[in-house]
Amino acid sequence: MTEVPDAGGDKRTVKQERALRTRAVLVRAAAEVFSEAGFAGASVAKIAERAGLTLGAMYFHFRNKDALAREIVRMQPGRVSVPLESVGLQRAVDITLAWAYQMRDDPLLLAGARLVMDQEQFIPPEENSHGQWSDVLAEELAEAAGRRELRASVDVSVLARLLVNACTGAQMHSQMESGRVDLPDRIVETWRFLLPAVAVPSAVRRIELGEARGRAL
Amino acid sequence: MTEVPDAGGDKRTVKQERALRTRAVLVRAAAEVFSEAGFAGASVAKIAERAGLTLGAMYFHFRNKDALAREIVRMQPGRVSVPLESVGLQRAVDITLAWAYQMRDDPLLLAGARLVMDQEQFIPPEENSHGQWSDVLAEELAEAAGRRELRASVDVSVLARLLVNACTGAQMHSQMESGRVDLPDRIVETWRFLLPAVAVPSAVRRIELGEARGRAL
Repeated sequence: MTEVPDAGGDKRTVKQERALRTRAVLVRAAAEVFSEAGFAGASVAKIAERAGLTLGAMYFHFRNKDALAREIVRMQPGRVSVPLESVGLQRAVDITLAWAYQMRDDPLLLAGARLVMDQEQFIPPEENSHGQWSDVLAEELAEAAGRRELRASVDVSVLARLLVNACTGAQMHSQMESGRVDLPDRIVETWRFLLPAVAVPSAVRRIELGEARGRAL
Repeated sequence: MTEVPDAGGDKRTVKQERALRTRAVLVRAAAEVFSEAGFAGASVAKIAERAGLTLGAMYFHFRNKDALAREIVRMQPGRVSVPLESVGLQRAVDITLAWAYQMRDDPLLLAGARLVMDQEQFIPPEENSHGQWSDVLAEELAEAAGRRELRASVDVSVLARLLVNACTGAQMHSQMESGRVDLPDRIVETWRFLLPAVAVPSAVRRIELGEARGRAL
């Protein structure tokens, strides 16, 4: 998109769009550098270089490395794109599977996974990514409870935390052992164990765990 | 203990004991430094200083920082001291609870938890700590299966991995949110969800999850 010098209000919009694009380029470059080098090993200089921008341009958008890392962590749930319509328990399943499949090809999700391990260095505890993801899943599980898909004894927020814990551990484990190739299988394993414990039998039978739940085929 | 210069074979033993003590002091100092600074932030100089030893003495025992980190990761299962007698499923429960309680006071377990996140930097994938802990739990769960405490459909190695994943995630989550104070509660939560899914009803009723399972009261 080129600048439109005489268009008044439009000109500002074009500038804003350009700023948004530059910001996206920076976030993407930061994601790549964090994925490769971890939080401690990354530097603003490396990130600006990867983005093909000057340090000045970088500092215009982000005050420091911490701000970039926080932005990437906050973007995580919004990066996961659930391919099929769903509600309640199936939706909770779909979110975890979409995360597992898409992580392998999305530099921002990869960086999020890498940064989880260092997040105490740059994010306040009350904004930590575990809490963020637990809230996302708890909302879907509360919907599931309202639809009577869950056993009456299930505490929705405890289950949400357990799921996030298991997914976090699975991601680390899978990264060490298979470069994350088997991450979706590990998430499916987790659900296969948990579903009979937390869902009513009719819901257990209905829930789908196939690849189509996690990525557009 | 002082050296016994004229005791022949005993002299060697005294030297060996001194070497073992020095080694233990080094490992303890390294554990403290890794816990505080992470793997990337630790240095052999800092570790030697914390141990009150020269760099030369340090290098006599460990070739580099990686070797110290590997030693600490390998020591983890042996550091967990299960306070009460148990076998099978209760033993698997006890190991996870003892780990959760003792982590809070044991610098070596704390360092192990911190190093898990950086382990790809210093440990070969086939020796990773997730695999190590999965093997420990799988052994107890196989015993549990032999005693018919588990449902016939349960795959022992899949369950062991799921437990390690959930414990890893719980540890990271708990560290961010409570400085690990609530880690034992999170492990108990995990078992409360999993037990009805994996164990036969008589075993579910028998399993104890109280504090006494994890630390000597």
